[in-house]
Amino acid sequence: KEQDAIRFSNTGSCADCGRPMADKVADFALETQGASVISTRCSETYRIRSACVTLFGFPLWYPSESPRTVIQGYPVLLPGKCWAFHGVQGTLVISLSHPIRITHVTLDHLPRYNSPTGRIDSAPKDFEVYGMENDTEEGTLLGTFTYDEYGEPTQTFKIPNPSDIVYRVVELRVLSNWGHVEYTCLYRFRVHGKIATT
Amino acid sequence: KEQDAIRFSNTGSCADCGRPMADKVADFALETQGASVISTRCSETYRIRSACVTLFGFPLWYPSESPRTVIQGYPVLLPGKCWAFHGVQGTLVISLSHPIRITHVTLDHLPRYNSPTGRIDSAPKDFEVYGMENDTEEGTLLGTFTYDEYGEPTQTFKIPNPSDIVYRVVELRVLSNWGHVEYTCLYRFRVHGKIATT
Amino acid sequence: KEQDAIRFSNTGSCADCGRPMADKVADFALETQGASVISTRCSETYRIRSACVTLFGFPLWYPSESPRTVIQGYPVLLPGKCWAFHGVQGTLVISLSHPIRITHVTLDHLPRYNSPTGRIDSAPKDFEVYGMENDTEEGTLLGTFTYDEYGEPTQTFKIPNPSDIVYRVVELRVLSNWGHVEYTCLYRFRVHGKIATT
Ligand SMILES: [K+]
Ligand SMILES: [K+]
Ligand SMILES: [K+]
Repeated sequence: KEQDAIRFSNTGSCADCGRPMADKVADFALETQGASVISTRCSETYRIRSACVTLFGFPLWYPSESPRTVIQGYPVLLPGKCWAFHGVQGTLVISLSHPIRITHVTLDHLPRYNSPTGRIDSAPKDFEVYGMENDTEEGTLLGTFTYDEYGEPTQTFKIPNPSDIVYRVVELRVLSNWGHVEYTCLYRFRVHGKIATT
Repeated sequence: KEQDAIRFSNTGSCADCGRPMADKVADFALETQGASVISTRCSETYRIRSACVTLFGFPLWYPSESPRTVIQGYPVLLPGKCWAFHGVQGTLVISLSHPIRITHVTLDHLPRYNSPTGRIDSAPKDFEVYGMENDTEEGTLLGTFTYDEYGEPTQTFKIPNPSDIVYRVVELRVLSNWGHVEYTCLYRFRVHGKIATT
Repeated sequence: KEQDAIRFSNTGSCADCGRPMADKVADFALETQGASVISTRCSETYRIRSACVTLFGFPLWYPSESPRTVIQGYPVLLPGKCWAFHGVQGTLVISLSHPIRITHVTLDHLPRYNSPTGRIDSAPKDFEVYGMENDTEEGTLLGTFTYDEYGEPTQTFKIPNPSDIVYRVVELRVLSNWGHVEYTCLYRFRVHGKIATT
């Protein structure tokens, strides 16, 4: 427990300078680590740039990003390199790399200063996180959180009253965004916790 | 305007430590953001490594990097991960992600300390930047600049006397390099400014 | 020589803060720079995640990483994004980008704090480095080193008594790991030195 607190507090050393704490702990939603998106239970992907965008009269089709983008751990967040869904409400379901007791989740969005408009209105605002022990159950609400429009790009949220229940699947349910009327964009979502010891 | 000055000056905070200012503003030449290379108006790609390179007697073909490499925003600059053109003069034409008033451009090259030779003689030296409102016109010279061989890898240049004209296309015209006789290499080019408010 | 010492010591400046010294020198094992893996002389790839991993009853096949992963210079080390070989002993043979006098080598492994288990038992422990002037010879032992389980993720090793011999091929021979019984994982291997002047 002590150890945990230390890992999630800023040590103040030079090497940690400017790096979010979420980068210094394990992320059980990472695809390279064995996690995966359960696509059948996610919202439909919204095509941000359609054929309406034309270049010298020719319609342009952009490949849209799949929900896998959200758990692939890109080292920098590039504008548009995110998974978009229509409107303000959407769902992402992830099969974790290991069964864990969940203690924190992290949501990343493009920094405001890198946004072409200076705003991040397509960022999620209120969202819920659910845990599932297996694929048949409904899911237990672990917490309701708000991504701060004016906060750091990488925001970590502590699960209130974390239980000893071991989860294998996590659902992220976005309830609102910061003002974009067409779509909401997810850049990265991470799940932190403790591996179950059997 | 005030805001602008702040965004382009070093705030001195810990998180900004060691990061170039160009990383803290929007880049309207980024492919993920909707920008694209107008290939028909670019110089021809030069194949740096040809079949002359052999390994145990077998000729080796390396895939060469396309001009798209220059606007894909890779988080680290890897030696050879650049777009090369023959000789010292070459042209890259980019359709911006948004119509903007251009205030700055940035040129990145591999750091000298990461170069196998300790030199960066394939880096651009003198170059011009042109703005175009649409695809039919000739282009207006926005400025002539020099990439400093001994400067930081990421160098940002202020457009002198920026006008209120809104540009959709930018041309980078390299005039000379730092000594390489065969080819010149572009690692990254960025365009900064203000989105046009209609 | 003096210059060399400076390049391999911490300058203490803000920009270098938290970055390993190996990032500030050339790496002659980098694929983008022209190096390549000689696959016929490497150990066989071990498939970390097999069809034994199932999701809702369906067997899952993960693509396994090839030895090329080790020399592709990814900016962040992601858990599982490594080349694995069976057991604790394995061999990686690299054709360098340039013929060089070898002065240092660097081994990178996933940071402990990013590991799901908090351990890095699949990390190499003792290893040997061999140099070859061409592809027919046996190889000269350049040094025997130990990757420190509790050290920094990026560890650089000085070749003792470096000679003036120019090598074109380097062999990394792992002799033991930090406790994993099934496989050993290599995240990145780098070779530093001086280009031969003919
Ligand atoms: K946005
Ligand atoms: K170069
Ligand atoms: K490991």
